Amino acid sequence: MFNRDTVINDLKKIREQSPLVHNITNYVVMNNTANALLAIGASPVMAHATEEAADMVNIAGSLVLNIGTLSRAWIEAMQKALEAAKKKGIPVVLDPVGAGATPLRTDTCIRLLEQGGLTVIRGNASEIMALTNAASSTKGVDSTHSAADALGSAKSLAEQYGCVVTISGSRDYITDGATVLEINNGTPMLTRVTGMGCTATALTGAFTAVNSDMLTAAAAAMSVMSIAGELAEKISNGPGSMQANFLDVLYSLDEENIRSTFRE
Amino acid sequence: MFNRDTVINDLKKIREQSPLVHNITNYVVMNNTANALLAIGASPVMAHATEEAADMVNIAGSLVLNIGTLSRAWIEAMQKALEAAKKKGIPVVLDPVGAGATPLRTDTCIRLLEQGGLTVIRGNASEIMALTNAASSTKGVDSTHSAADALGSAKSLAEQYGCVVTISGSRDYITDGATVLEINNGTPMLTRVTGMGCTATALTGAFTAVNSDMLTAAAAAMSVMSIAGELAEKISNGPGSMQANFLDVLYSLDEENIRSTFRE
Amino acid sequence: MFNRDTVINDLKKIREQSPLVHNITNYVVMNNTANALLAIGASPVMAHATEEAADMVNIAGSLVLNIGTLSRAWIEAMQKALEAAKKKGIPVVLDPVGAGATPLRTDTCIRLLEQGGLTVIRGNASEIMALTNAASSTKGVDSTHSAADALGSAKSLAEQYGCVVTISGSRDYITDGATVLEINNGTPMLTRVTGMGCTATALTGAFTAVNSDMLTAAAAAMSVMSIAGELAEKISNGPGSMQANFLDVLYSLDEENIRSTFRE
Repeated sequence: MFNRDTVINDLKKIREQSPLVHNITNYVVMNNTANALLAIGASPVMAHATEEAADMVNIAGSLVLNIGTLSRAWIEAMQKALEAAKKKGIPVVLDPVGAGATPLRTDTCIRLLEQGGLTVIRGNASEIMALTNAASSTKGVDSTHSAADALGSAKSLAEQYGCVVTISGSRDYITDGATVLEINNGTPMLTRVTGMGCTATALTGAFTAVNSDMLTAAAAAMSVMSIAGELAEKISNGPGSMQANFLDVLYSLDEENIRSTFRE
Repeated sequence: MFNRDTVINDLKKIREQSPLVHNITNYVVMNNTANALLAIGASPVMAHATEEAADMVNIAGSLVLNIGTLSRAWIEAMQKALEAAKKKGIPVVLDPVGAGATPLRTDTCIRLLEQGGLTVIRGNASEIMALTNAASSTKGVDSTHSAADALGSAKSLAEQYGCVVTISGSRDYITDGATVLEINNGTPMLTRVTGMGCTATALTGAFTAVNSDMLTAAAAAMSVMSIAGELAEKISNGPGSMQANFLDVLYSLDEENIRSTFRE
Repeated sequence: MFNRDTVINDLKKIREQSPLVHNITNYVVMNNTANALLAIGASPVMAHATEEAADMVNIAGSLVLNIGTLSRAWIEAMQKALEAAKKKGIPVVLDPVGAGATPLRTDTCIRLLEQGGLTVIRGNASEIMALTNAASSTKGVDSTHSAADALGSAKSLAEQYGCVVTISGSRDYITDGATVLEINNGTPMLTRVTGMGCTATALTGAFTAVNSDMLTAAAAAMSVMSIAGELAEKISNGPGSMQANFLDVLYSLDEENIRSTFRE
């Protein structure tokens, strides 16, 4: 079940439990995603050394892998962390940033998928389509397709790897292959601030750490992201103030905000 | 020709074409420069792996190399990306952050210059002087000279390497060795926010992607930078709010703003 | 001697001398700590290549080592920079981010301590306790102890290594093993913005560069940090605006602010 009450309930659990979310993510967004996790009530940690990747997983509630600024050493760290997470049985969220733009990015995602243990994949339409070899072109890290275009790819990915797939766009879709949930909140201004997709992925890490139903956890993350985006946009003059206001809104987001902003 | 109309026209082209700007830049400023590129209407991508540097160049409209936090692996990626950019014939902008402060920085810049294919170099006075072995001392990454001091160095660099050189300072100079353009907008507050020089370089990447005249493209970038800085400074209480307001102003900068703020 | 007058005096010296602070720090906070150093009047530089670590130390007034996102290459750079700093006789501040969370982090700190030359260590209670093998657990990078719990560990660390130890928390303690200074300013909102501990460490770098008494220099840094935090919190709506306002406040902090906000 997914509705405004489950979103409210999941958010409450994050604030009560303050789950440790271990991120192996890209340089561009580290500060933002750490701040978003703190603002929502989770506890972020960033650690990418192969020597400590497994140790950090062992004290974490979930793992977030983001390939935005990839290199050989980071791929190795992701593989080690994923292996440890699989053994420990914690959720792992993958952000395939720029999949389709270069072979390195697409191939790395496929290898991580094949390794097993990924529980949620969150990308834009172009990235999700690239992972299923669907006809797709990615313009760097920005999507050239609408989220609806990628729904077929998302379903087949979800079925093939037994995971949940989130496609973010002007409307977000979350699917486990069988069920499809839609998020009808959001604002285009979220695409004018760098790393907001990565932030959605990080929040997905927080929600999956407190709700064992991956489908509704992933949807709750996108819902909070979109609602906070809408509320922040109303008080912002552009992408610079949006970045700060988004964190303020996340921090103070309460039952009433969610209830009145959530769109079925 | 360079005047307020060419600046307005170039900005319009960026918003229409949304060029993909590939950045191999430093860790400190990645978030800011990505946001500045998004705010102005371009599409930023950051990728430094040697395995994908050339692939990313092949879908990009311009390449930005910034040596702010250098290491051996990143130098190699810059060389590969530069080679690919030269083959493809896209503009390449170099930011010689901290040249003169350590041999590694100065030597890396010289090697990139010797490799060929750089179309614009943008630095502060100390950095530009360091590249021509002019008597210069750099205090870390901050300049100890005025822009005018470096004009001789800039001209000889431009002639020697067949590129455009931008010296930023309280007044900016842009030269191709023969012509010198001046930017008479700006505010010292831009020097109190980290990475604003790097942002100027990134914007130069966007402008050179849409205007094949490197001299006026580089000047337009500095003009927009300086005008946005002036406008942002008026509504800011210090460097923290300046950082956010600068992005808001860039995002909403229009013909009227530019026309009324541009100083001959 | 430490009181509001020494704090005011140290801040004045930073603005007059604008010391170059060389940071080998983590990816998450680089932008923030560079901005905080600029805002307070210092000149930040970030450089981590083993090839230039010593060269950069040779033009710096102090060195800041922060293990927040560690890797083998960065550890090597820290060791080289520390060796150069020891030879040159400049202050070195260590931030043991996440010590106790993984062996890599704890072991790296111990090795740096054993190498000699560290003048100030600033961490939260869990991190400081981890360095003395005190019964401690660190939840990622957040403390699970109060600052007072760690006072014994701090004193023994200070004695063993002949350095000053700062424990930050709701009340901060600074000790050289014999004397203990307390900072009674601050706000919990500082813990909701990522990297504020790292910022405190960076500011400690600036203060130790202008005041040769490490104990009062470290205390002045924490005092300015806490006062600026209090003042920023009053004008902020949450952690996003706090991050920007904190820099604005640091930038404009004056004798009167400090005098009226400082709590004995």
